[in-house]
Amino acid sequence: MTIKDIAKLCGVSISTVSRVLNDRPDVSEENRRKVLSVIQSSNYIPNNSARDLVKTKSDTIGLVVRGVSNPFYTDIIHAIEARITAHGFTMVMQQIGSGDDEVKCGAMMERDKRLQGIIFLGGRSDYTPAELAALNVPFVCCSYGNPYGTLLRDTYSSVSIADEEEAHRAVQTLYDHGHRRIAALISREDDRSISQLRYQGYMKALRENGLPLEEELVISTGSFDIQGAYKAVAEKLRQGVEFTAIFSIADNMAIGAMRALREAGRKVPKDCSVIAIDGLEVSEYIDPPLTTLCQPMEEMGQRSVDILLDMVQGKGHNRHEILPTTYRAGASVRKLH
Amino acid sequence: MTIKDIAKLCGVSISTVSRVLNDRPDVSEENRRKVLSVIQSSNYIPNNSARDLVKTKSDTIGLVVRGVSNPFYTDIIHAIEARITAHGFTMVMQQIGSGDDEVKCGAMMERDKRLQGIIFLGGRSDYTPAELAALNVPFVCCSYGNPYGTLLRDTYSSVSIADEEEAHRAVQTLYDHGHRRIAALISREDDRSISQLRYQGYMKALRENGLPLEEELVISTGSFDIQGAYKAVAEKLRQGVEFTAIFSIADNMAIGAMRALREAGRKVPKDCSVIAIDGLEVSEYIDPPLTTLCQPMEEMGQRSVDILLDMVQGKGHNRHEILPTTYRAGASVRKLH
Repeated sequence: MTIKDIAKLCGVSISTVSRVLNDRPDVSEENRRKVLSVIQSSNYIPNNSARDLVKTKSDTIGLVVRGVSNPFYTDIIHAIEARITAHGFTMVMQQIGSGDDEVKCGAMMERDKRLQGIIFLGGRSDYTPAELAALNVPFVCCSYGNPYGTLLRDTYSSVSIADEEEAHRAVQTLYDHGHRRIAALISREDDRSISQLRYQGYMKALRENGLPLEEELVISTGSFDIQGAYKAVAEKLRQGVEFTAIFSIADNMAIGAMRALREAGRKVPKDCSVIAIDGLEVSEYIDPPLTTLCQPMEEMGQRSVDILLDMVQGKGHNRHEILPTTYRAGASVRKLH
Repeated sequence: MTIKDIAKLCGVSISTVSRVLNDRPDVSEENRRKVLSVIQSSNYIPNNSARDLVKTKSDTIGLVVRGVSNPFYTDIIHAIEARITAHGFTMVMQQIGSGDDEVKCGAMMERDKRLQGIIFLGGRSDYTPAELAALNVPFVCCSYGNPYGTLLRDTYSSVSIADEEEAHRAVQTLYDHGHRRIAALISREDDRSISQLRYQGYMKALRENGLPLEEELVISTGSFDIQGAYKAVAEKLRQGVEFTAIFSIADNMAIGAMRALREAGRKVPKDCSVIAIDGLEVSEYIDPPLTTLCQPMEEMGQRSVDILLDMVQGKGHNRHEILPTTYRAGASVRKLH
C-alpha cells in the first residue's frame, strides 16, 4: 500500500494524503477522516526515509551494557529503550562482559555509528579524565557514579542510588533485628565497583555499632553471578564459620546464598537471615521471599535518557541524580532474642 | 591520538600507518610491529566512518523483542547481539509489549533504519502472507514458527523448539511418575502462541494415556508473567480443585505457581509436583529446584543470526531449524505410589 493507493481509495489527491500524514492544517475535516480511516484499516506504514535523508545529524543513542545477563538490567534496558524511541531517537545497544572496557566500546560505537550520546549501564567507578578523552559526545553513567575516579562533576552525568548509604541501611536493619555476626556477600573488597561501595556501607554500619570487622565474615565471590555466590557461601559454611545473617550486595547473589544455606541444612530466616539490594521481581516469589531494598529501575532508566537527551538537544548540562530505594519486606529476616 | 600522531611517534609515514591499519601486505615486519605496539599502548581507536561513508548499504540488523522483560529472553538477546557484532553488523533493538504488533514495528524499523534483515524474538504464530507483505528484507522468527498461519515455508525462516512435542514429553514425565490429575498452567487455550502449542502437547499426552480433558484443570492466566500465574493458581486452589501435578508452559509461571501452592499450605513436590519448559538459571536455585526442559537459548540466538546473515550476504535461503531441549531434573516432581 503506497500513498498513491490511499489517494485512489479515498478519491483525493496525493498531496491531500501527504498533508494528512504530515498533520498539516490545510485539509478539510471530511478528507482528513477519510484518509485516516483508510490508513487505519490498511497496513500502510509511513515512510520516514525521505525525511531522514535531509537530516544532517544521526539520531542514534548508544547503550553500552556491562555485565552480561545481569537480571537487574532487564527492566532498565526496557525503560531506556522505550524512552529513547518515544523521543524519536534510535537506540543502538552493545553488551560487554564485566571484564571488558566499556569506554573503549562506547568510543568505537561513537565513531562507527555517529552517536549523539551514550548511556553506560554498569561500569567502573574510577574513570580518569584521560580515559574519557576518547568520548566526544555527552554520556550518562546509569546505576553508578565516579566515587573512585577523578572526573570533574560537570564533565559527566550519572543516575544512581546512594550505594554506601543503602548498604548501611540494610546492615543496620539486621543489627536492629539483634544480629551481631553479620556476613557480607560481595564481589570484591577493592574492585572500585558498586561492590566496594556497598562493602564500605557494611563496614560503616559495623563501626558505628561497635562491631569488629572480621575477615572470615567477608565472602568475596569475584563476580556478581548467582552461581559464584552459591559456591562461595557453600565453601564458607563448609569451613564452619558462624554467622546469623548475610548482607548480600545483590538479590541474585542472595538467591545463590539461600540455596547454599538450605543445602547445608540451615533454614532462612530461622538459622540465618538474608537481606539484599536490588528488588528483582522473582525475589518476591522464592521461599522465603527475600527482604530487599528495591532500586527504582524504570525511573533510573528514564532519568538517564532525559538527562542525556537534554544535553543532546542543547537544553541542559551534565547533572547527577541520586534516587532512593524502597524497602520491601520479605520473610528472610528474623528478630533474634 | 590520530593517525598523524602515531606516524610521528613511530618515525614512519602516515601511509605506512594506514597500510598497517588496513592489514595490507606492503609493510616491513619491523614497521608493522612498531606501529602496532604504539597503537596498543596508546588509546588509538580506528576510525571507520570514512570507510562507512563509501558503503552504499547499511549494516544494520533489527531485533524486535515482543513480551517485555521476559527473563527467558535475556540470554538469547545477548547471544544475538554478540553474533551480529562479531560479523561486523550493527544491531538495533526495539522492545514491544506482548499485545503490540511486531510486524508493524519491524516494517517501520526497516524503513527508518534501512535494515538489512530482522530477527523477531517472540511473536504471533499465525502470520498470513498479506500481513508480511510490509516486510521487504529477510527475517527470522526466533523461538517460534508459523503453525497457525499460512506462510509458505520458503518465505520466512524460524528457529524454535518442537513446542508441542516438548510439552507432551513434560506431561508424559508426570504421567510416568504416577500422576493422573495434571493441571495445565497456560496463557490461553486459543491464542495461537506457543501457549496454545504447548497446551496441545498437554492434551495429546492426556489423550494418548486415556485421561479425560477436564476443564477445571486448565489454568489460563491470560499472560506469561509470574504474577498472573501466581494469582490464577491461588484462585484455582481457593476453588478447591484437586490435582497432584502442574505442567507449566514456562519456568517463570511455574515459580509464580509454587508460591501460590506454598501459601495454600501445599508442599512441592510432596502435595503437588511441578514441571515446566524453559530452563531459567534461577530455577535451579529456588526451593525446591524446578524440574524443567531447558531451551538451548544461546544456540537459538546464534542460529537465528547465522541464518539471517547468510541471506543478507546472499549465501543462503530461508530455512527452519528445530532445536532439542535438555531435561534438567530439579526436585519439584515426585513419584506417586
